[in-house]
Amino acid sequence: MLLTFTTDFGISSPYVAAMKGAVLQVCSAVEMVDITHGISPQNVRQAAIVLADVAPYFPTNTLHLVVVDPGVGTERKMVYAEIGGQSFLAPDNGVLSYLAKQHPPQRVVALAEPRFWRQVVSNTFHGRDILASVAGHLASGLDPIDLGPIYESLIMLPWNEPLIELDEVRGEVLCIDSFGNLITNLSAAKIKGWAGPAGIETQIRERRISGLQTTYGKQAPGELISLVDSQGRLEIAQVNGNAANALAVQVGDWVRVRRGTKS
Amino acid sequence: MLLTFTTDFGISSPYVAAMKGAVLQVCSAVEMVDITHGISPQNVRQAAIVLADVAPYFPTNTLHLVVVDPGVGTERKMVYAEIGGQSFLAPDNGVLSYLAKQHPPQRVVALAEPRFWRQVVSNTFHGRDILASVAGHLASGLDPIDLGPIYESLIMLPWNEPLIELDEVRGEVLCIDSFGNLITNLSAAKIKGWAGPAGIETQIRERRISGLQTTYGKQAPGELISLVDSQGRLEIAQVNGNAANALAVQVGDWVRVRRGTKS
Amino acid sequence: MLLTFTTDFGISSPYVAAMKGAVLQVCSAVEMVDITHGISPQNVRQAAIVLADVAPYFPTNTLHLVVVDPGVGTERKMVYAEIGGQSFLAPDNGVLSYLAKQHPPQRVVALAEPRFWRQVVSNTFHGRDILASVAGHLASGLDPIDLGPIYESLIMLPWNEPLIELDEVRGEVLCIDSFGNLITNLSAAKIKGWAGPAGIETQIRERRISGLQTTYGKQAPGELISLVDSQGRLEIAQVNGNAANALAVQVGDWVRVRRGTKS
Repeated sequence: MLLTFTTDFGISSPYVAAMKGAVLQVCSAVEMVDITHGISPQNVRQAAIVLADVAPYFPTNTLHLVVVDPGVGTERKMVYAEIGGQSFLAPDNGVLSYLAKQHPPQRVVALAEPRFWRQVVSNTFHGRDILASVAGHLASGLDPIDLGPIYESLIMLPWNEPLIELDEVRGEVLCIDSFGNLITNLSAAKIKGWAGPAGIETQIRERRISGLQTTYGKQAPGELISLVDSQGRLEIAQVNGNAANALAVQVGDWVRVRRGTKS
Repeated sequence: MLLTFTTDFGISSPYVAAMKGAVLQVCSAVEMVDITHGISPQNVRQAAIVLADVAPYFPTNTLHLVVVDPGVGTERKMVYAEIGGQSFLAPDNGVLSYLAKQHPPQRVVALAEPRFWRQVVSNTFHGRDILASVAGHLASGLDPIDLGPIYESLIMLPWNEPLIELDEVRGEVLCIDSFGNLITNLSAAKIKGWAGPAGIETQIRERRISGLQTTYGKQAPGELISLVDSQGRLEIAQVNGNAANALAVQVGDWVRVRRGTKS
Repeated sequence: MLLTFTTDFGISSPYVAAMKGAVLQVCSAVEMVDITHGISPQNVRQAAIVLADVAPYFPTNTLHLVVVDPGVGTERKMVYAEIGGQSFLAPDNGVLSYLAKQHPPQRVVALAEPRFWRQVVSNTFHGRDILASVAGHLASGLDPIDLGPIYESLIMLPWNEPLIELDEVRGEVLCIDSFGNLITNLSAAKIKGWAGPAGIETQIRERRISGLQTTYGKQAPGELISLVDSQGRLEIAQVNGNAANALAVQVGDWVRVRRGTKS
């Protein structure tokens, strides 16, 4: 079985390896891939976006183990969920909700059968003591239905939709990647359809950016550009630079798009 | 064979991959897992604690390759050691001593047979030129006894034991994790037994922390709490924060526990 | 098939996992090893040196996927290349030129057959949409010759050769490793031959360093030393310290070697 890991443990944390060992103690026939361990501590929204962006590139039925879990040890549930042809093991704290907004979950089960957990379960590391052990059992062929009762509904976080007006589309910065590029919640295809032949002008803070580039490589270094990111979203970048630093922009800041002056 | 890596090479160092390649040149039937490459440069004690914490979560007979080696190229020995059902390849500089304190080593062999090393051995990278090559041969089925002579005793670092007095238990900060949580050398179970129904009060620097929480999630953000870490040790944390920064605490600082006022 | 990854995506970037998933969607029989994702953004020279240093330690016919690609979406070619017994998938921007300087490429093919790419190819992430998909097809047994036309010549970056004079050899800092050690473009064996029994004195900035140590471990902490790095090059290090910070040295700075006063 193919198993991925997404956590906020930090990139040099040995806790990730403890989880991997705990999986392999149950089942050795597992291929493991790290998605990221650099989620900001307890940033459930960031993890939710990363999962929705990356999981679709994995083979069908890949199992994704997610530990961004500020509520560890409280009453929050741990769940197994099938969403968009992929499987997930995660705390039910909204971390699957950006995916679930795009694809209705096919099956969700609450993890309620301690016989599939480690014998000793700590209060502070359910990723290792519950999720990793359950992942090992699933890799060994356990039917997910045996993990616990069907779970009616996942917790959904609020995800703002763009505001489409006559003269303006208002979206927001959804996340900032490791290059400092600003990923927005605006679909580039929809924006292009809305703008028509006039093209677009993007505004972030007081800066206005004309047009929509097809790539980073064609403008002068330092230039701010709008382009289509690798997920089809409107992205704002600084050529050979870091747009987030240059503009002091944060996640959630407004991005406005107006029609341009082309044609 | 399952093989793990623990080094102080830094998380973006290509030297780790050179070791992995060198293993695979000898034997391709190896599953490799990184424990961490974020040990502080030449911090043998930190690596010793990480190994003792993480190795027990791996399947029996996993081989753990360790390169935290300030003495590379000097007379220090390289060893193969079996400790607590796991196998290790490491410089003999104390990096296995926190494990060896908990489980007497079953077998230790000095690496003395250059025919199992790379043909050219550099003076500065024995991890690649000796340990990785030896790991490949072990994965191919080599009997560890062929690696060199039995080695009488591993180098042991001093590891302070808690001081248990009538009114107070004095321990120390053993390590600080990537969240800034302070892990102490105090067993939570022993402390609870010592304190009895009165419960505990923990002192670090001038701050006194009442009681022992079961999890991070139940107190207000910013609050300092004592709790039981995922290894059963007393831990001091700041809810949604970084206790090490907030208290300016370092590894080795005193932690005092007194009886509380419960019941 | 064994497949490695070298990128400038940053160590916590989920884009790496998207590439790995895209490979595994095409072929599941792939072992994957990260060389590094910590190349400085768009630093083609740094990636070129890392590849030349690390690739030779991998088994023959390992495939190395490289994404340091400031020209993504422009007219630069993507290539498959066989160099020194290893295979590479990379943009043709000079990133293979430090290897190609050492070993003439045996075969280079331009990637020109979209049927081996993902169905939708973004403008900004050819690593995932072209290279990862092609890697999956190669792992499935595709003959590289089917990827596109033979490509006449790789782009070569300028790589300065040392200047050997009667009284002095002048080289430069080729790269700086994660410990702050300064790796030069000077072959230690050649320098030793040039200097003869007098030994060497190394000058970097205004500092003169006498002799050539065999290892880090024999001088006092803080001392600057010259030694032979694990690739056989002259290296300048600070014992238990960071030479690059201590000397404020950058890649490309001059290093001068003169004959010493031994014997």
